[in-house]
Amino acid sequence: MSYRKKLTVKFFPGEKIIEVPKDYNLKQAILESGLDIESTCGGVGTCGRCKVQVKSGHVYAKGNKFISDDEKKKGFVLSCQSKIKENIVVLIPEKTKAKGKIEKGKFEIGKGKLYSGINTDELAAAEIKPWIIKEKITVEKPTLDSNTNDLYRLEKSIRNNFKLENISFPISVIRKLPYTLRDNNWEIVIILDKITNTLVNIQSVNKEKKIFGFAIDIGTTTLVIYLVDLTTGEVIGTASEYNPQIKFGEDIISRIVYTLKNDGLKRLRDVLLDLINKMVLALLKSSNIDEEDVVSMMVAGNSTMMHIFYGVPPRFIREVPYVTVTNKFPGTSAPELDLKYIKNAAVYSIEGVASYLGGDISSGVLATNMAKRKEITLFLDLGTNGELVVGNCDWMVGCSCSAGPAFEGGGVKCGIRAVDGAIEKVVIDQNTYKCFFKTIGQGKPVGICGSGLIDLISEMFLRGVIDRRGKFEKGIKNPFLKYTEDEYIYVVAEAGESGTGKDIFISEVDIDNLMRAKAAVYAGIKTLLEEVDLNIKDIDKVYIAGGLGKNINVQSAIIIGMLPDINIKKYYFLGNTSVTGAYLCLLSEHKYKLAEEIANNITYIELSVNMKFMDRYVAGLFLPYTDLKDFPNVESLFYSY
Amino acid sequence: MSYRKKLTVKFFPGEKIIEVPKDYNLKQAILESGLDIESTCGGVGTCGRCKVQVKSGHVYAKGNKFISDDEKKKGFVLSCQSKIKENIVVLIPEKTKAKGKIEKGKFEIGKGKLYSGINTDELAAAEIKPWIIKEKITVEKPTLDSNTNDLYRLEKSIRNNFKLENISFPISVIRKLPYTLRDNNWEIVIILDKITNTLVNIQSVNKEKKIFGFAIDIGTTTLVIYLVDLTTGEVIGTASEYNPQIKFGEDIISRIVYTLKNDGLKRLRDVLLDLINKMVLALLKSSNIDEEDVVSMMVAGNSTMMHIFYGVPPRFIREVPYVTVTNKFPGTSAPELDLKYIKNAAVYSIEGVASYLGGDISSGVLATNMAKRKEITLFLDLGTNGELVVGNCDWMVGCSCSAGPAFEGGGVKCGIRAVDGAIEKVVIDQNTYKCFFKTIGQGKPVGICGSGLIDLISEMFLRGVIDRRGKFEKGIKNPFLKYTEDEYIYVVAEAGESGTGKDIFISEVDIDNLMRAKAAVYAGIKTLLEEVDLNIKDIDKVYIAGGLGKNINVQSAIIIGMLPDINIKKYYFLGNTSVTGAYLCLLSEHKYKLAEEIANNITYIELSVNMKFMDRYVAGLFLPYTDLKDFPNVESLFYSY
Repeated sequence: MSYRKKLTVKFFPGEKIIEVPKDYNLKQAILESGLDIESTCGGVGTCGRCKVQVKSGHVYAKGNKFISDDEKKKGFVLSCQSKIKENIVVLIPEKTKAKGKIEKGKFEIGKGKLYSGINTDELAAAEIKPWIIKEKITVEKPTLDSNTNDLYRLEKSIRNNFKLENISFPISVIRKLPYTLRDNNWEIVIILDKITNTLVNIQSVNKEKKIFGFAIDIGTTTLVIYLVDLTTGEVIGTASEYNPQIKFGEDIISRIVYTLKNDGLKRLRDVLLDLINKMVLALLKSSNIDEEDVVSMMVAGNSTMMHIFYGVPPRFIREVPYVTVTNKFPGTSAPELDLKYIKNAAVYSIEGVASYLGGDISSGVLATNMAKRKEITLFLDLGTNGELVVGNCDWMVGCSCSAGPAFEGGGVKCGIRAVDGAIEKVVIDQNTYKCFFKTIGQGKPVGICGSGLIDLISEMFLRGVIDRRGKFEKGIKNPFLKYTEDEYIYVVAEAGESGTGKDIFISEVDIDNLMRAKAAVYAGIKTLLEEVDLNIKDIDKVYIAGGLGKNINVQSAIIIGMLPDINIKKYYFLGNTSVTGAYLCLLSEHKYKLAEEIANNITYIELSVNMKFMDRYVAGLFLPYTDLKDFPNVESLFYSY
Repeated sequence: MSYRKKLTVKFFPGEKIIEVPKDYNLKQAILESGLDIESTCGGVGTCGRCKVQVKSGHVYAKGNKFISDDEKKKGFVLSCQSKIKENIVVLIPEKTKAKGKIEKGKFEIGKGKLYSGINTDELAAAEIKPWIIKEKITVEKPTLDSNTNDLYRLEKSIRNNFKLENISFPISVIRKLPYTLRDNNWEIVIILDKITNTLVNIQSVNKEKKIFGFAIDIGTTTLVIYLVDLTTGEVIGTASEYNPQIKFGEDIISRIVYTLKNDGLKRLRDVLLDLINKMVLALLKSSNIDEEDVVSMMVAGNSTMMHIFYGVPPRFIREVPYVTVTNKFPGTSAPELDLKYIKNAAVYSIEGVASYLGGDISSGVLATNMAKRKEITLFLDLGTNGELVVGNCDWMVGCSCSAGPAFEGGGVKCGIRAVDGAIEKVVIDQNTYKCFFKTIGQGKPVGICGSGLIDLISEMFLRGVIDRRGKFEKGIKNPFLKYTEDEYIYVVAEAGESGTGKDIFISEVDIDNLMRAKAAVYAGIKTLLEEVDLNIKDIDKVYIAGGLGKNINVQSAIIIGMLPDINIKKYYFLGNTSVTGAYLCLLSEHKYKLAEEIANNITYIELSVNMKFMDRYVAGLFLPYTDLKDFPNVESLFYSY
């Protein structure tokens, strides 16, 4: 018989104690205790974020570059690289705790804002042609001379009123049919899903004739939910929250890797469903809506998020030849997917294009209406991943460039997401090289978010702090350039003025990561255009969607060579187009079918095996780009300094 | 705050103790303690079977005719009529304990007998055209050049191999698709339901290419299940057991009444599902079949049983104008119906005709093949209820005559079901009036079952023990006729020779109940024939099915005027045709469709409001019948004595 001794692990702050077997992974133990810690790499020891201090007891920790000799002496280890050998006491430093996490159950709940974007003129018009209908219906009462059964009579009435045949009647509806008919004197309200030809529910007539649905975008980083009145199109409430899967890995790839662990898929799914359930409940409560009246949910998300949402292994998305299990998940019911509180709701999701071009992109393209226009549009969804579609009403091509999470704070030591205290705008004084910045919420800076990083690189480049390769100019008299811990760093905010009490800086390694990310985006755009024999000049409009896109300074993004150097007036910010598309589909069968058409009409270009992409990518590792002819305005700007 | 004191109830034998609130119904308490007691009326105080003795403590008991003054003094009460007022100790007499109950988990499990009846030539031939197919299929492996998703490739392969389009893929199958494909090198086994166009399951190729299904008849009294090999039609195993709902009421009406109680429907459904699950498990275990390979279940039963099985309130079946909620329940999955162990199985049921002519009758008619023949057939299903169908390939009419449970032991003091010790054959000595009898299992008699009661009435009538009205002839010297407890009884077996140590007898009230039952059956036959302008003489064949039919002496049944007085060679006993029909439907889509056609083609005659039926019924309260012309052979027999 195997007997595994249980060891106790005590965490500070909080004094949480859990028991684990010997040799248990320390990061796993932390997650199981319910504590959230930072982690970008999914537990493979490459991000260095899950640093903790073992105050007493022994752990076996693999050596790594993130722990200095001094720290090692003090008991610091990377928790993901450590095995628990004895009873231990662990201190989780403030820095290591998960950031940007809103407390459980406290979602940002908005009221009635239709659409999420800025230039709403650019978005497709909403049309209310709900395919789930709620109607009053009279059923003929049986008599001794005409005593056919209840269901037959209801069927006949639906046939006569709506010309619908072969309707499916779920057993749950049949169970309540006899009393609903008789308690309401044979006049009831029916809720019919015209896509699946299913009687979703029946109700008393005295119920208000309202039906509601949820539109939801499951992003790698953020979840957004709209609660929608399906009869008016009004957005009754919105809620957003970080994707709780972040603690298991920051990007798509680390999530997929996590699903390979025992129970990994279940864990990722459980935390996701748990949050969705909580958000749904919060929205229903805050708007006083009866869960009985929620008839549908429309889900958009990238392919990996959709796989996890439906409980389907996403493993083969990241293995050659990169296939999904399906791009189109079947219509199902809320209870079948473990969704609580909305037991009458049918759940649909928007069809994706490919492994790395998911339903969030079909949804976004639908929202922009570009598939209905003659103009050539470049659609960029800049979130944790960068996805691009170019085209018009006649053709569309799309691709995904694994930009990586650099712009969302991953792989950049002082990088954070766009939360309070994040530096979002930066200007550098040409004479003193001092940075002036603006933080989100106007408080003391605690890190730099994506738009701040783009501004910073752009400014460093323009002011000569870095050269075209992204290396620090050491010949200039820059008092903010320091050498520390084996590398040069440029201090953006000094310890004294920061909210962390430490310097906020950028290092050459950080810049390298950001260069790679911006190079990937631009190489994606170039490759896609070349596939259809077009040039940057041919682009009529650029739509930027996604979390990163929200606050980006386009000028800075052009200067660093991330976005094409075209007239800035051609750029439009549309915010979260994925949830907007889901909202449109929720309201109209026609739009839902259109999203499906879009998914089928986009030609997917796989970049991971595309040699042209590799060339453009390498060319993009310069500021703004190897060939300056692509960036005429930047070139002139460059030489004007 | 309401505070309800808990009282303790202790039961003997067994020393079981449970806690209940004050004023709790004693019978309810007995059932909740897990003890089974006899009850025919469903707890309304009219059958007198749930008699128990309160040994200490006070209960409030309504007065009734079943408890003598002497018994009252000893603490006897009808448990269903008693409220618990104090802590009590209750003795459950041997007589009150539920009889004929096989111990839990010990079902009668048979092996490989095809069909249940005797004259199998009269039954429809089985054909194996399974509409749930299990086939090996090769899916094209994806490459970088052809990297469409798994589901798309599978769909394409199914389309090419089986010419099937628009298949539904349940999320549970999609979840296992990626690994099943890759673990089996893209060659897998698919299980497809061609009726619903659904991919039921996918499996590894190394699995044996077998699929199995369950055919089940849910009778008011008995459950019968067949486990069937769908590729060969072989019945791998059978199991039968009393319907555990009996403890809540013996006949359909008392079951419906029970569903009106709080949680009543749930209780009836729970005990039923619990038994089905146990029987399914026992059959799977005894035959070593993998539950993964069970793909379907076909259910037959009367309308009330079907409502309860599906969890649909049957209340309005017994209220004017007597309508079901539906006669055709939708196809569903085993887990949706709380069926365990067969999670891949699709569940179908056979369509019924009307409230009192259910799917068991459509199934039976299918099994007899009468709907395909020119001959005019009378089909009688004699179970707890009596259902009749007359017709041929051109037309069919059917009705139900509420014969009541008299022939199954209800309303007859010494009546019991056909269990060990039941008197099943009776002959009366003309000179001494002594009864000679045969019991089931050849042991000492403990009661009289249906066939014995029919024999007994017939013999009593032929030997002059009773007159044509069913009243005892008091003028003859009959030493077995006794006057006791306010009524005359005729002793069939004396206390000394019986297994109970008491007389086994029949009273005038008993005879009255039996007369009513037999009159109802014959009146049903007459009315049905008259509806189509036919006469008894026009009947070519009589098929008798059902639990009661099994051991019946046709001659006796003719003599008492229950069955038509036609050539005895026209009678055929087919046993449980309901399960046979379900078995046929399980094997063939064509037969399943045929059963549906049969259900739709039978014209239902409602007898409860039919004046002709009432006339025939009253005429049937004589032996054999008021008008002897209907019974020429009995008449001659009668005058020969």
